[in-house]
Amino acid sequence: MSVTLPVTSSATSSLPVLLVLDAEPSPRLGALAGRADVRYADEHTLAAELPRADALLVWDFASDAVRRAWPGPGPRPRWVHTPSAGVDRLLSPEFAASDTVLTNARGIFDEPIAEYVAGLVLAMAKDLPGTLELQRQRRWRHRESLFVAGSRAVVVGAGPIGLAIARTLRALGVRVDVTGRTARPGVHGAEELDELLGHADWVVCAAPLTGATRGMFDARRFALMRPSARFVNVGRGALVVEDALVTALKGRRIAGAALDVFEHEPLDPGSGLWDVPGLIVSPHMSGDTVGWRERLGEQFLDLFELWMAGKPLPNVVDKKRGYVPSHDS
Amino acid sequence: MSVTLPVTSSATSSLPVLLVLDAEPSPRLGALAGRADVRYADEHTLAAELPRADALLVWDFASDAVRRAWPGPGPRPRWVHTPSAGVDRLLSPEFAASDTVLTNARGIFDEPIAEYVAGLVLAMAKDLPGTLELQRQRRWRHRESLFVAGSRAVVVGAGPIGLAIARTLRALGVRVDVTGRTARPGVHGAEELDELLGHADWVVCAAPLTGATRGMFDARRFALMRPSARFVNVGRGALVVEDALVTALKGRRIAGAALDVFEHEPLDPGSGLWDVPGLIVSPHMSGDTVGWRERLGEQFLDLFELWMAGKPLPNVVDKKRGYVPSHDS
Repeated sequence: MSVTLPVTSSATSSLPVLLVLDAEPSPRLGALAGRADVRYADEHTLAAELPRADALLVWDFASDAVRRAWPGPGPRPRWVHTPSAGVDRLLSPEFAASDTVLTNARGIFDEPIAEYVAGLVLAMAKDLPGTLELQRQRRWRHRESLFVAGSRAVVVGAGPIGLAIARTLRALGVRVDVTGRTARPGVHGAEELDELLGHADWVVCAAPLTGATRGMFDARRFALMRPSARFVNVGRGALVVEDALVTALKGRRIAGAALDVFEHEPLDPGSGLWDVPGLIVSPHMSGDTVGWRERLGEQFLDLFELWMAGKPLPNVVDKKRGYVPSHDS
Repeated sequence: MSVTLPVTSSATSSLPVLLVLDAEPSPRLGALAGRADVRYADEHTLAAELPRADALLVWDFASDAVRRAWPGPGPRPRWVHTPSAGVDRLLSPEFAASDTVLTNARGIFDEPIAEYVAGLVLAMAKDLPGTLELQRQRRWRHRESLFVAGSRAVVVGAGPIGLAIARTLRALGVRVDVTGRTARPGVHGAEELDELLGHADWVVCAAPLTGATRGMFDARRFALMRPSARFVNVGRGALVVEDALVTALKGRRIAGAALDVFEHEPLDPGSGLWDVPGLIVSPHMSGDTVGWRERLGEQFLDLFELWMAGKPLPNVVDKKRGYVPSHDS
């Protein structure tokens, strides 16, 4: 879906008001000097500022302040951009029902996340965590490792991130099935997932968090996986019932897992997830390669140019579904 | 080079004597029942048994007993097979000068080692060691990581292992140069290595250990690398001057390294290599994926069939150079 928006001006300025949710001035926005009235808000001032903004840049994309501060009927931004792939943190029912256009950072994270997943798959196949632990103990202990080429993966999530993961794993010789909400050429429908789980050496979750996907990796689905299977989540934490994963790992129902995302981030130092045998915990960093903030800033500037010119915006989120439909790519 | 050998019989048997250097009966050799007189030797009995053997299988390929026990003039095996890629441990000057044919396990380790190297490259790019250490400390610390696609690698060693590493890294979008002893299409000559080192993000050593390559990664070559470069050795330990690597890492002349092979294996618990910052130590396991011993056994049986049939053997080592010349592949 792409949408053309009328560029509106606020009452107090001849320039459109761009509100930025961020504690500090964001990089790259200096390029908008003289073209937008750039204002900053934090989670405390956001509610008061939102009705006066023409557009909102959710630079602090880890915040859920937009969900809480979104105005009811009345003035509100015509356009909201989040420099993230997922939009679950900001989409309140009121926002979803409004005619405000929401765009995301589609495209920026695809290849970095795909590399990250490939790295996790290879690290688990070659037991790099075991090697590093033995190194710490100064112990030389040869082990046999797994050959990745010819193994099977299911990637859950048929957006650009899931498809990039599939491409990269295939480049390593992995046989990959991709599942999405509905079947399309090269993508299995959600109803085929359970059957596919029983054949997978690697199950990679890169789905958007929506009402339909929340908690989809539960005890039942972990029970469908092979004892030798390993699970990777780079989507959103709440896609996984964390307790069920811990139980599956501790009971050796599956062989290993890696989580880059969690229901509550940052993960509390007291969380039981830090030291589950066979579980790799990383701090939501899979897509964040050097220069990522600059690339996100440039992407926003490109969208801003289109918006100012009254041209259609790409990366428009279907707010009912909670993601950018893939026929739009 | 491939060579046809006359099948000779020992004085005490109508069957050819196959001597196996190994503490225990090797798998798969039961298939030779009635076709060969299979005898076993250990490093203490090898010297006495060698003159009576028609063929020698160096199943205990990590031993250097063959080098020590090789007979002078007089009876000796006509064929020696080692189920390893490198032949440096067994090639004494006397063996090299003899007309005994030496074959190796060319082909078995290529793709497993290539995957292992790709795993190390991705793990270092994504700082997986740092992530695991932070996990141990229950610390959530987001970091930016490196994007591997578009980075540059030099693979030193243009045999099938080096070429497989190059293919796999290229599949991940890495721009790869390969160097060998002499230039050929797609391979740079050894004289180009120094220049290439200055442009590489990843330097991967997969060369055979010969008189020409021993100690090739010394202080001078580490000084030619970029401060951001990372070094991986999956060849032989003695290709690297280990003290020079440690100095380069401690002085941050290069950014990181991973060694799977060492001058002395197993690495002594007291070695200073275990805890050098930025160095990953693994126990010579890069090529050893589940089923590797069975594959090595099958490869030997295939060669044995050719030998018995008087047909040319593949994988014949040029004993002067110390490896199987690549025009043979």
